[in-house]
Amino acid sequence: MVVISLEQNEYSMKHTVTYYECDPQGNVTVGMLINLAILVSEKQSDAVGLGPDIVGQFGGGWVITNYNIEITKLPKVGETVVLSTRATSYNRYFAFREFWIRDQAGNEYAHIASIFVYMDLTTRKMVQIPNEILQPFHSEEVKRIPRVGKLEAITSEELLLRQDYHVRYFDIDANQHVNNAHYFDWMLDVLGEDFMKTHRLKKMLIKYELEVRYGKDLVTSEVAIDDATLMTKHRIGTQGNLNAEANCWWEKLA
Amino acid sequence: MVVISLEQNEYSMKHTVTYYECDPQGNVTVGMLINLAILVSEKQSDAVGLGPDIVGQFGGGWVITNYNIEITKLPKVGETVVLSTRATSYNRYFAFREFWIRDQAGNEYAHIASIFVYMDLTTRKMVQIPNEILQPFHSEEVKRIPRVGKLEAITSEELLLRQDYHVRYFDIDANQHVNNAHYFDWMLDVLGEDFMKTHRLKKMLIKYELEVRYGKDLVTSEVAIDDATLMTKHRIGTQGNLNAEANCWWEKLA
Repeated sequence: MVVISLEQNEYSMKHTVTYYECDPQGNVTVGMLINLAILVSEKQSDAVGLGPDIVGQFGGGWVITNYNIEITKLPKVGETVVLSTRATSYNRYFAFREFWIRDQAGNEYAHIASIFVYMDLTTRKMVQIPNEILQPFHSEEVKRIPRVGKLEAITSEELLLRQDYHVRYFDIDANQHVNNAHYFDWMLDVLGEDFMKTHRLKKMLIKYELEVRYGKDLVTSEVAIDDATLMTKHRIGTQGNLNAEANCWWEKLA
Repeated sequence: MVVISLEQNEYSMKHTVTYYECDPQGNVTVGMLINLAILVSEKQSDAVGLGPDIVGQFGGGWVITNYNIEITKLPKVGETVVLSTRATSYNRYFAFREFWIRDQAGNEYAHIASIFVYMDLTTRKMVQIPNEILQPFHSEEVKRIPRVGKLEAITSEELLLRQDYHVRYFDIDANQHVNNAHYFDWMLDVLGEDFMKTHRLKKMLIKYELEVRYGKDLVTSEVAIDDATLMTKHRIGTQGNLNAEANCWWEKLA
């Protein structure tokens, strides 16, 4: 029997947090946590010879469907953090990937669980993940991938805060899509400065339904705030479509 | 006689360009070039013992008034570049600082000339620069600091493209101000995808007049395009105020 240590498949890189990756409190923004997560997974993909060109040869690309972000503490401007990722497990249609952001002593700042699918670029439909783009990660084949948590949708009787956002040219990044971080900015911006300065985000579940496109879409961001449980429910829509949903759990700052 | 090499006062750091610092073509955005410039000048300030806390002890802070950005070529996603800066010269009221972005072989990507003033944080007025925050940079005292280039303002007879922008909570960075890169994004976003994909920015002059504030300001970005000279004139305003002006020189891509 061969025992493969799980850590063996973990890929890590260091990153020093810049001032432009932080919010007014000097903490990394949650959108930027996701940018850092994708950054380390792209470096791992390059390291195992699976850059976007190779992945594209199979006619498709990886698409994110869910993130479960658990934040112990946010890294501060100037800190050097260790970004790690592991392609934990997969089945025919879903890949489960984890990310960790830690300090250099190994203490955890955040853990992110995510689910990716493989989309055929011609039909824009989800297809079976080609074995060639899974094998090099030494990921574990499983019947069922772990669930990242079930979302509670906004109900029709809830009071909502609402704000519209234009998709800007520079919202598209080098991956040719509206950068994922902007979904977080649209979702949290609606809460406003007073809320953001008096609450700390502990956990966030986000589910992507439909890509927001530059030049076509006006984004509407809506939020329902439950003051009792300090839970917020978010919805991003465009022209009647649902693009993304999220739930956030907060802690009130003293 | 002591000859001090100019290079002696140059401070450098390496930076690897991430995908979220790039535009859809995989080039660093011009707003991000400015973020990188400020990043290296902050590191230099820290290195000579002049972090924001120390600078603040004199009752004020550095404020940018002008940038002249000359771009030979934009760094690409994944490239490791060398960011350099030098506090070149100063007089009683103005400090002239230069920045270079180069590849690791020393070839220049961009050169940025800038003028900073020192603002009293109570009166919000420009005051004489305290000697204590200049001396450690070994900058040259001069009668007149170099001019960074004269701006041509938009005239009343020009046809304008115009777009409004909300200032978002995450537009404020760890320095407690609307991040400088957003002025560039507001200015260039108005030009639209077709223009941005068919033109390369060669040079940009920008002059800041008044800070844009979160929560109070609706930003209006206007541009006049001169198709013959491939020069664009930009204006950022809020409720009738002029916040910033810029001129851009472009090259048409084949």
